[in-house]
Amino acid sequence: MKRKQPVKIKKTKLAKSFGKAPGTVVYIGEKEHLSTKIEIHDYTKDSYNITETDNIEDAFVFKGNDHTSWININGLSHTKEITRIGEFYGLHPLLLEDIVNTNQRAKIEEYETHIFLVLKMMYFNKKQEFTVEHISIVLGKGYVITFQESEEDIFDPLRSRISNSKSRIRNSSSDYLGYSLLDAVFDNYFVVIEHLGDKVELLEDELFNEKTNSNITQDIQSLKREILRIRRSVLPLREVIGRIIKSETDLIQEKNKDYFRDLYDHIIHVHENIDVYREMIWGLMDMYMTTISNKMNGIMKVLTIISTIFIPLTFIVGVYGMNFEYIPELKWKYSYYVLWGIMFLLFLALLIFFRKKKWL
Amino acid sequence: MKRKQPVKIKKTKLAKSFGKAPGTVVYIGEKEHLSTKIEIHDYTKDSYNITETDNIEDAFVFKGNDHTSWININGLSHTKEITRIGEFYGLHPLLLEDIVNTNQRAKIEEYETHIFLVLKMMYFNKKQEFTVEHISIVLGKGYVITFQESEEDIFDPLRSRISNSKSRIRNSSSDYLGYSLLDAVFDNYFVVIEHLGDKVELLEDELFNEKTNSNITQDIQSLKREILRIRRSVLPLREVIGRIIKSETDLIQEKNKDYFRDLYDHIIHVHENIDVYREMIWGLMDMYMTTISNKMNGIMKVLTIISTIFIPLTFIVGVYGMNFEYIPELKWKYSYYVLWGIMFLLFLALLIFFRKKKWL
Amino acid sequence: MKRKQPVKIKKTKLAKSFGKAPGTVVYIGEKEHLSTKIEIHDYTKDSYNITETDNIEDAFVFKGNDHTSWININGLSHTKEITRIGEFYGLHPLLLEDIVNTNQRAKIEEYETHIFLVLKMMYFNKKQEFTVEHISIVLGKGYVITFQESEEDIFDPLRSRISNSKSRIRNSSSDYLGYSLLDAVFDNYFVVIEHLGDKVELLEDELFNEKTNSNITQDIQSLKREILRIRRSVLPLREVIGRIIKSETDLIQEKNKDYFRDLYDHIIHVHENIDVYREMIWGLMDMYMTTISNKMNGIMKVLTIISTIFIPLTFIVGVYGMNFEYIPELKWKYSYYVLWGIMFLLFLALLIFFRKKKWL
Amino acid sequence: MKRKQPVKIKKTKLAKSFGKAPGTVVYIGEKEHLSTKIEIHDYTKDSYNITETDNIEDAFVFKGNDHTSWININGLSHTKEITRIGEFYGLHPLLLEDIVNTNQRAKIEEYETHIFLVLKMMYFNKKQEFTVEHISIVLGKGYVITFQESEEDIFDPLRSRISNSKSRIRNSSSDYLGYSLLDAVFDNYFVVIEHLGDKVELLEDELFNEKTNSNITQDIQSLKREILRIRRSVLPLREVIGRIIKSETDLIQEKNKDYFRDLYDHIIHVHENIDVYREMIWGLMDMYMTTISNKMNGIMKVLTIISTIFIPLTFIVGVYGMNFEYIPELKWKYSYYVLWGIMFLLFLALLIFFRKKKWL
Amino acid sequence: MKRKQPVKIKKTKLAKSFGKAPGTVVYIGEKEHLSTKIEIHDYTKDSYNITETDNIEDAFVFKGNDHTSWININGLSHTKEITRIGEFYGLHPLLLEDIVNTNQRAKIEEYETHIFLVLKMMYFNKKQEFTVEHISIVLGKGYVITFQESEEDIFDPLRSRISNSKSRIRNSSSDYLGYSLLDAVFDNYFVVIEHLGDKVELLEDELFNEKTNSNITQDIQSLKREILRIRRSVLPLREVIGRIIKSETDLIQEKNKDYFRDLYDHIIHVHENIDVYREMIWGLMDMYMTTISNKMNGIMKVLTIISTIFIPLTFIVGVYGMNFEYIPELKWKYSYYVLWGIMFLLFLALLIFFRKKKWL
Repeated sequence: MKRKQPVKIKKTKLAKSFGKAPGTVVYIGEKEHLSTKIEIHDYTKDSYNITETDNIEDAFVFKGNDHTSWININGLSHTKEITRIGEFYGLHPLLLEDIVNTNQRAKIEEYETHIFLVLKMMYFNKKQEFTVEHISIVLGKGYVITFQESEEDIFDPLRSRISNSKSRIRNSSSDYLGYSLLDAVFDNYFVVIEHLGDKVELLEDELFNEKTNSNITQDIQSLKREILRIRRSVLPLREVIGRIIKSETDLIQEKNKDYFRDLYDHIIHVHENIDVYREMIWGLMDMYMTTISNKMNGIMKVLTIISTIFIPLTFIVGVYGMNFEYIPELKWKYSYYVLWGIMFLLFLALLIFFRKKKWL
Repeated sequence: MKRKQPVKIKKTKLAKSFGKAPGTVVYIGEKEHLSTKIEIHDYTKDSYNITETDNIEDAFVFKGNDHTSWININGLSHTKEITRIGEFYGLHPLLLEDIVNTNQRAKIEEYETHIFLVLKMMYFNKKQEFTVEHISIVLGKGYVITFQESEEDIFDPLRSRISNSKSRIRNSSSDYLGYSLLDAVFDNYFVVIEHLGDKVELLEDELFNEKTNSNITQDIQSLKREILRIRRSVLPLREVIGRIIKSETDLIQEKNKDYFRDLYDHIIHVHENIDVYREMIWGLMDMYMTTISNKMNGIMKVLTIISTIFIPLTFIVGVYGMNFEYIPELKWKYSYYVLWGIMFLLFLALLIFFRKKKWL
Repeated sequence: MKRKQPVKIKKTKLAKSFGKAPGTVVYIGEKEHLSTKIEIHDYTKDSYNITETDNIEDAFVFKGNDHTSWININGLSHTKEITRIGEFYGLHPLLLEDIVNTNQRAKIEEYETHIFLVLKMMYFNKKQEFTVEHISIVLGKGYVITFQESEEDIFDPLRSRISNSKSRIRNSSSDYLGYSLLDAVFDNYFVVIEHLGDKVELLEDELFNEKTNSNITQDIQSLKREILRIRRSVLPLREVIGRIIKSETDLIQEKNKDYFRDLYDHIIHVHENIDVYREMIWGLMDMYMTTISNKMNGIMKVLTIISTIFIPLTFIVGVYGMNFEYIPELKWKYSYYVLWGIMFLLFLALLIFFRKKKWL
Repeated sequence: MKRKQPVKIKKTKLAKSFGKAPGTVVYIGEKEHLSTKIEIHDYTKDSYNITETDNIEDAFVFKGNDHTSWININGLSHTKEITRIGEFYGLHPLLLEDIVNTNQRAKIEEYETHIFLVLKMMYFNKKQEFTVEHISIVLGKGYVITFQESEEDIFDPLRSRISNSKSRIRNSSSDYLGYSLLDAVFDNYFVVIEHLGDKVELLEDELFNEKTNSNITQDIQSLKREILRIRRSVLPLREVIGRIIKSETDLIQEKNKDYFRDLYDHIIHVHENIDVYREMIWGLMDMYMTTISNKMNGIMKVLTIISTIFIPLTFIVGVYGMNFEYIPELKWKYSYYVLWGIMFLLFLALLIFFRKKKWL
Repeated sequence: MKRKQPVKIKKTKLAKSFGKAPGTVVYIGEKEHLSTKIEIHDYTKDSYNITETDNIEDAFVFKGNDHTSWININGLSHTKEITRIGEFYGLHPLLLEDIVNTNQRAKIEEYETHIFLVLKMMYFNKKQEFTVEHISIVLGKGYVITFQESEEDIFDPLRSRISNSKSRIRNSSSDYLGYSLLDAVFDNYFVVIEHLGDKVELLEDELFNEKTNSNITQDIQSLKREILRIRRSVLPLREVIGRIIKSETDLIQEKNKDYFRDLYDHIIHVHENIDVYREMIWGLMDMYMTTISNKMNGIMKVLTIISTIFIPLTFIVGVYGMNFEYIPELKWKYSYYVLWGIMFLLFLALLIFFRKKKWL
């Protein structure tokens, strides 16, 4: 019952675009109420300007000068403003749809005047919560526009590099800025992956330390789901970056392609790590199964030892509890002590048997 | 016995085309008795005409004018009429066979004057039942013909867009109409996939909440089968849409190819989701197995605790139930109370043992 | 012991060709004693002749005329006659070896004057037994030669189509005849696959209906083996038909290639179905395992309930069976009834405990 | 402890070449003490000469004449002689290293004057032991040199064919001789594979006949290992033969390529069989698991039936073994018989209960 | 808690480069405190010079002469000196970053004047500990520079070969030196793989010898992890060496490419072995599961045999322990002996039953 609700919410979410004409710009995501904030970094080798505004038209000033501009748009729910900036920079309607559709998988599209990238950002936010965010990057001649769902700090180191006039970023063109943005996104992938590895190792420890409780199945399954989710985000990135490298666009200078090749390497590395952790998690499940089986064995051993020792002894004492009138042993004076002796020997014999069976 | 029957029905179904000359147009499906209904939307930018008829010849009027026509044919069992329209529009006999063979998998075939597509529609009908339907689309210059098994409402939003003279569909050529039809079909895939995801999550909840009954294996297996079925329908779509994009036909304008590229993205997205759910279902089975094993462990623990406590105690009381004439303890006044004391200590010792074993 | 024998037979079988020079035409198969029967259908649009004979030379008359001839040779053990017809029609020695080697997998070889195909036929014979048969097809200009192990009826519908002067087969060249033969073979694949699907479903039903007996593992394993066997036959067909389509031979007219493309579709469809059933069978094994585990749980529950109730009670009655002289309760008049009361309360308490554990 | 030794031997073996300059010809294998025996078959259509010698220089006479020579060198440990023949025939140093390194996987290398092949022979030797042997083949114009570890009889049928002046081998060039050698090697693969299939079937029988002992896990695992080992040998052969077919060398005549194509088919066939047996062995493991589980179920049933019947009965008789002074039933004359009746009814009730549970 | 720490250390490690500008040369590894030692082997056919120094500038002397120089740099934490040598030899900044980033996976990059390779060395150090080390190789015209984390002895045999004026290495150019270095690295892979194989076999032995303790799951899981780790290092090597072979650089002479082809073969061999061991380890887990299940069966059998024999007997003796006044058997003189007879027969009957069930 409790579960049903989020499911319904999802259906509502989807319903927003369902049946609409393709190319309709409808925000599909969960951060509805955030207003659109615009942050513009405009710089040359020598000058640096930073503007923060709520008015989308402030962003139009920077087009066409010989500066490099990074226009960072936070908040995707106000689709009207997204549409306006799209029109101003000549973006294709389908592309605008992708910007505001947070279900869109990573992809790249090349146009004459710009390259369009959709990615997933993954990071731990200030509260150390795992966060997946939709980000779109438009890389044009002299400008880079980024569209984010909410204002986050993963670009902070980049901001400080831009403010430093001696940084390579200030001395390079917009393609290097684009590369730096991607590099910042991918750096966070490594953090996420490493965190995942820690979780796998923690679970492994728990399993070995026999501190297993019934929740471990849930932990393994939820880890599995998380890994599948990350994998789905990373999977298309290989192709995305690969296509930038092979692209013949003049938006990316030949000398800067090495940087993108480096990104490609990073992605493959992330990918391989994910696959390794995936196999390890499957292995955990197997380990858990053997742990359960071993425990059951332990329980059964105790039961069997106790039963095997005492059931025959109980039989013996039962024999002499019978009320037959003629049981000669009953009359004999030392019967009781002899019986204890016999029972003790039987007990010893069984102990030796168990030791030989390696149950003790 | 009950089961045998549907199997026989299937064989009869197959028998219809079995041994016949290839190219023979025989309806293979389960909706035999439906008459063929034709619905024609004929429009230009400025005009819009809708015709509903039972007479196939009414559809021939619209060929050759400079309008765009969407001829929607519902009901495939009257193969004669299908053959007639096929002959009128110059469709290949094998193609007609594919239209009426509901077992045909998705495929694309390019001809000089038209492109032929076979697809599976998947949707929840008005009664919220999961429905798979065979649909064929012939995309020609100025016309699109669709062949459906039964009249359903997944194209309703499309119909209303056509009736709106300002919609892009009214202002575009027949290839955009074709795209819109495919888009409507694929939108429903997402709904189906999402529904699947809900089911997987519900099953997961049930497993965690220990509300497991023996039917859960059936649920998992039937979910697995459903996923395999959907996957089989989606698998060839990738190639189908990929071939439209790479096609050099002039039936699809270069400027509209972007829309088809978008469809391609959608299909890959659907595909990835299916694979994720598939892995999750396999994981569910594993989880269920560990749940069973854990339960067994619980049962065994109870049995072992009870047995381990009471079997030795029963032995002890058995000893003093023996009828030997010389058992000194029997005569001693406090024997009974001392024995209770000993048994209580043994009981405590075993409790401590179980607590150490973490069984309590 | 019983098993050893077929194995030895196999070795003998292999020994026949073992160590012989390659290209030696030795029949490798199990239908040794069948004589070679020849059946010749010679037809044009207007004429139709059918000849049945034991004399291989009767087949040589039909070469070179402008008719189309289908020469069907049944029985492969008389290799001399196979060799003679091979020499007459200019077939390569290695090709003759393939015709009589029933272990040969499906393949295609193109020669200047003919195309050579090896296939496996799969069908249910008149006695409804699953049969796999080796068939070779030589497709030349104006003639098609088929080599079968034994005379079977899967080509009967084809024979009646040939006898009908208005059929497409009578109005087409030998490549259409070749296609029709392949189509007949593939139609039977669908029947076999469907039968397989029925078996899978029957097994599933048995598992659900708890009618499980220990043979079900055997059934599953033998089903698995059967599927692997069919898969091995179907696997190379994709390439075989694919190569016909891509071939530049003039033996197959361009206009008839569509028919072969259709065959290609059929093969992919068969292939996908096999993979689905394969996954389902693997799923059955899992289901069976959980069924066993569930049963074990049921058995354990009964044991645990009975033991947990009666072992403590037996201890209690044991206590008052002791022969101590000073047990005050023994003397008290209502002890017996009070004890029954206590035991009944204990019984109730355990019932409540089991109900809480959901074991009852 | 016993196990450690072969491992150490292996390390010594490896140590031989470890750290040496690449191209150093060091024998790596286990048949150290065998002297090098040379066997030369020199033939034309009309003449045939066979020479057996220990002196490597006897082999040099046959180079350059217009005969075809097969120089078969047995024993690889005398690397000096290998080096000498290598120098005489102009073989690359790395190639010599491969000849004497029995760990080398199958490969092909083309040189201007010869083609070099490394293979694994697999066969059952005269004592019916499974043997894997390293063989290198140098195929040059007019000569074929084979390097074997030990003299074995798998080429015996070939020897007799060579001695027969009417055989195709006598009438063909050295490439046909090379093909015949490969064909002899591959024929033995089929024998090995078939033997493997027999083993799988035997194991399956054992499992079904319930003759399972604890060794079956070992049998399955060792079968698995054997299959992995064969697979590793066969895997590269596909590429090796494929490259001969695609090769543009004039050492292999175009008309003889068909023979190599036939070999390629054989290899694919072997490969497919291995994969099928592999899947079947994995299936065996599953079957074994269910067999164990079924047995456990059987054991549990017996335990549960006995316990469930006798534990309550034992409780009842315990009640009347109590020594209370006031148990009215004890005094009643027919109590004993009535109690037997009650216990018998209880016994019957439980039997009916078990029959309903299908445990009996 | 104990576990958390290494995880934190890792995070610190990563943090070093996190957020920095790409191309920043920061050492990422664990061997911080090692100073940079430089070892230069400068040789021609006739001369040989070896220099060991701490001063990076000593390495600059050797550039440009017609000798071949091997500059081996040990210790990567002093990034300044790495940067200086990088600048001197014209290495790309990103390349320097890869040299000091020990997390970098194997890769190859071709530049006009040099080829850059990153690899993982795997070996057992002098203390026989498994060690993975990061190594970068810069192969230029007349020089090879290697960057290692710590000074190790795997290149010792190579050093002695260089000192021998008649070795091929002294008579070849720098590409052969590069090959020899790679060959030394790969030789150690074989040792590691072989060691892994020994471990797998040891575990298998332990499983068969029933010396299983609960640690075996851990051993299997850690072996699995080790294999995944090695696999991740080996995986990219295939491509790395493959690209050297396909490269059109003039840094590697055509006649020496055969050596690299040989390396390629080695890598594939390593790869196949890893995959075989991987499958074997998965098989071990299965075997372990069946071992546990078999043990459980053994335990259950003992329990069931003991219970089945003694529970009915205990019931019987219980019957005659009842205190009814009228039990005729109690009075009869031979009752006791007859009862023993009956119980002995029951005992025998059960033994026969167990023998038939094959439990004894």
